[in-house]
Amino acid sequence: MSLFRNLIQHSTSKSKPLLTNPNFLFTSLSHFTTDTHTSPSLTRYAGLEPTKGDEKPRVVVLGSGWAGCRLMKGLDTELYDVVCVSPRNHMVFTPLLASTCVGTLEFRSVAEPIGRIQPAISKAPGSYFFLANCTGLDAEKHTVDCETVTDGLDTVDPWKFKISYDKLVVAMGAEASTFGIQGVKEHAIFLREVHHAQEIRRKLLLNLMLSEMPGISEEEKSRLLHCVVVGGGPTGVEFSGELSDFIMRDVRQRYAHVKDYIHVTLIEANEILSSFDDSLRHYATKQLTKSGVRLVRGVVKDVKSQKLILTDGTEVPYGLLVWSTGVGPSPFVKSLEFPKSPGGRIGIDEWLRVPSVPDVFAIGDCSGFLESTSRPVLPALAQVAERQGKYLASLLNKIGKDGGGHRNCDKDIEFGDPFVYRHLGSMATIGRYKALVDLRQSKEAKGLALKGFTSWFIWRSAYLTRVISWRNRFYVAINWATTFVFGRDISRI
Amino acid sequence: MSLFRNLIQHSTSKSKPLLTNPNFLFTSLSHFTTDTHTSPSLTRYAGLEPTKGDEKPRVVVLGSGWAGCRLMKGLDTELYDVVCVSPRNHMVFTPLLASTCVGTLEFRSVAEPIGRIQPAISKAPGSYFFLANCTGLDAEKHTVDCETVTDGLDTVDPWKFKISYDKLVVAMGAEASTFGIQGVKEHAIFLREVHHAQEIRRKLLLNLMLSEMPGISEEEKSRLLHCVVVGGGPTGVEFSGELSDFIMRDVRQRYAHVKDYIHVTLIEANEILSSFDDSLRHYATKQLTKSGVRLVRGVVKDVKSQKLILTDGTEVPYGLLVWSTGVGPSPFVKSLEFPKSPGGRIGIDEWLRVPSVPDVFAIGDCSGFLESTSRPVLPALAQVAERQGKYLASLLNKIGKDGGGHRNCDKDIEFGDPFVYRHLGSMATIGRYKALVDLRQSKEAKGLALKGFTSWFIWRSAYLTRVISWRNRFYVAINWATTFVFGRDISRI
Repeated sequence: MSLFRNLIQHSTSKSKPLLTNPNFLFTSLSHFTTDTHTSPSLTRYAGLEPTKGDEKPRVVVLGSGWAGCRLMKGLDTELYDVVCVSPRNHMVFTPLLASTCVGTLEFRSVAEPIGRIQPAISKAPGSYFFLANCTGLDAEKHTVDCETVTDGLDTVDPWKFKISYDKLVVAMGAEASTFGIQGVKEHAIFLREVHHAQEIRRKLLLNLMLSEMPGISEEEKSRLLHCVVVGGGPTGVEFSGELSDFIMRDVRQRYAHVKDYIHVTLIEANEILSSFDDSLRHYATKQLTKSGVRLVRGVVKDVKSQKLILTDGTEVPYGLLVWSTGVGPSPFVKSLEFPKSPGGRIGIDEWLRVPSVPDVFAIGDCSGFLESTSRPVLPALAQVAERQGKYLASLLNKIGKDGGGHRNCDKDIEFGDPFVYRHLGSMATIGRYKALVDLRQSKEAKGLALKGFTSWFIWRSAYLTRVISWRNRFYVAINWATTFVFGRDISRI
Repeated sequence: MSLFRNLIQHSTSKSKPLLTNPNFLFTSLSHFTTDTHTSPSLTRYAGLEPTKGDEKPRVVVLGSGWAGCRLMKGLDTELYDVVCVSPRNHMVFTPLLASTCVGTLEFRSVAEPIGRIQPAISKAPGSYFFLANCTGLDAEKHTVDCETVTDGLDTVDPWKFKISYDKLVVAMGAEASTFGIQGVKEHAIFLREVHHAQEIRRKLLLNLMLSEMPGISEEEKSRLLHCVVVGGGPTGVEFSGELSDFIMRDVRQRYAHVKDYIHVTLIEANEILSSFDDSLRHYATKQLTKSGVRLVRGVVKDVKSQKLILTDGTEVPYGLLVWSTGVGPSPFVKSLEFPKSPGGRIGIDEWLRVPSVPDVFAIGDCSGFLESTSRPVLPALAQVAERQGKYLASLLNKIGKDGGGHRNCDKDIEFGDPFVYRHLGSMATIGRYKALVDLRQSKEAKGLALKGFTSWFIWRSAYLTRVISWRNRFYVAINWATTFVFGRDISRI
């Protein structure tokens, strides 16, 4: 590692201004190897070589969601080099994403750069963040294949590279499920990434503006301003609540000409918030209906560009369609030849290891307990992912301290206590500073159920302290205060 | 107007939930007319009819920049209905745009929704904002042709409509000039709109991340991290300053692996900040060089996707190219059969009227004094546009009060004092809280020249109070404070 550092410094001191010296210094770096099988002009296959015995072991983390980021935050960078591979250079604070669509929060307030979660990634010589997708995995050789993400840049073609790992943590999350319904991917917007929220916001504001134009028919106006949310889980309910709140508070004022045309419909096949306590569910239904959300029980059969069709044949014209019906394993996870848990996730044991695959762990939505553990597959919740990341960070730190950090070196290490999940309760907000908090351990258990402003405030505050930096905590507080005083932002940029 | 209001209320009270009653109520509104020449299924040509004698006269404003927004802010909405036509629903606070590219400020802090500048637009029954481009003008009939802007929405095709005006204010600004150089529009990014700043930011951060990847050649790394700015006016200088500041403060910390590869080059054919006082120019040159910006004198001949070529044959590879070499008249302004000022802008007299075209005014960058006025064409500055907007608002309010608001009614009205421009000085920031302020009336005059932090602070504070709402003033202050404490934001969303 020190060699690498020296070479960097060496190359730096020799580098000259570009325009006076167009011949760049080509430095060969021991760590960055070039695959010699391809022709020199197409040399795009390189990577990070295996670490040597006197170097720090390398933990490679695939993904930058709750699980991966909490893990990286907790890893001891005195013990390990950390390499993160993800198509996204920030973590999304998902519980607050719905609020950004309507301008309650800024987009950046809910995105935390990985370099701020684990500073070593941007500073330490052997730690990196790679903006790339993982495309393959060789458990025998301890390597992963990656391909760079270059969208938005037409001058660079994506290229492939290989990374050797000592420990591999798969934390790639899950994918929004469409249940094979045609047209969902083409016409609906999911609510999982910041760019989804941006798309929803742009579309909502454009629809509002278009519907004010002369020459638009009444029918078209009603269609453009009909916002349909499919899926009555916490995300769908929260988004519906924020949206109707936005309509009640801001649209009435700012788009007075069309305020009576805008409507929100929430479509759910069963019950909304089905995992919540009965009394909370009734409270949510009452509150949503009161704030103008139409709750419709139905199953979507087909999605067209301007309408969706339910199984009973009802046609529902829409201007904005948000899809949040849960998640399932991604194609990459499906393709892995690992043991699988019920539901097709990567199968793990009590220590979050993938059994029979040395040095590979899986956490978060992409993983599930194997049937052999006799434990239930945990729900796809931020809470679970966060707890698993935290646990695995301690476990890896322990292994590292005991000298088992390098590949195939942890056979004789005592792993200690297995991971135990204790459900702290579920929460869903339903617009205007109201929230449901269900503190029961499971659907069958008895326990405390809270609703209203206090629960909203306590829960949010508690959650904010988990991963988010002080900068963003500060911004979120400022955003809330500003929205409270001045109303939401409605510029479409 | 009251009829219109009644009809709106009428239609509202009858509207029913969408899903229970799919037959929408079609209300014919007196104000929104439908062109009967097209077939009913393609009814897309409609508009706002001429106002009647007992209705408020209608001021139509084309554009939502400094000139148009300052005008709308000042118009007395007791006297006039205001209709704004623009492809952008917000005003951009252009002096702060450069700061948003590197994360010093949030994008939304520099965008002010028009509905906040002139609340009547979103509330008053006869006032509207139309997200549309103006495509034609009939001075005889007092109408403008418009076409809706629907980008980002694939389910709606753009349509045309017509608006009748009593007074028309053309405030459409100017267009970035490329001097006919090939490849500028394809490969360079301008810095005039918020989406330009977003594009610059996304590209800069992507280049930084890509250059950290294994498998990238040294040459490619240097190219990706070479930021070239063409044009040494205030915008080019400010952006270079912000960028080098970002590199010195943030990239060194956050992208330690590549910090020695990133460079900023500013290319200018003549002198940077040529309109400024000599001593200020020297100070700027010294400060920029000190902070690592390479100043190159040269003329660009050709722009390719990965390099630009100067007239002396030098090839300059770049990863990011920002173009800010001044502005010229837009194709629409060129197409207007109006008298023109030197430089091809819409020719105006001392009262900002377009002579011989009744009820039409032009302000801001799209307008210039006719030679017959013996006045010089004013520079394309926010300051000029702002002052013209303010003046014209008072003039139109005076005309309205004197009963000349309707079309062809102001012949006997005394217009009062003509518009007089007093230059308050020019400013440019050059990174890290340093600014130049030139208080001379013109290039030849003598006067006060300030530099450093105090001038930066005073000037910014003064400017912020012009158009921006309290909400955004507050946000800008918070953004500055946060950047000061926590450093800039580096998430790529």
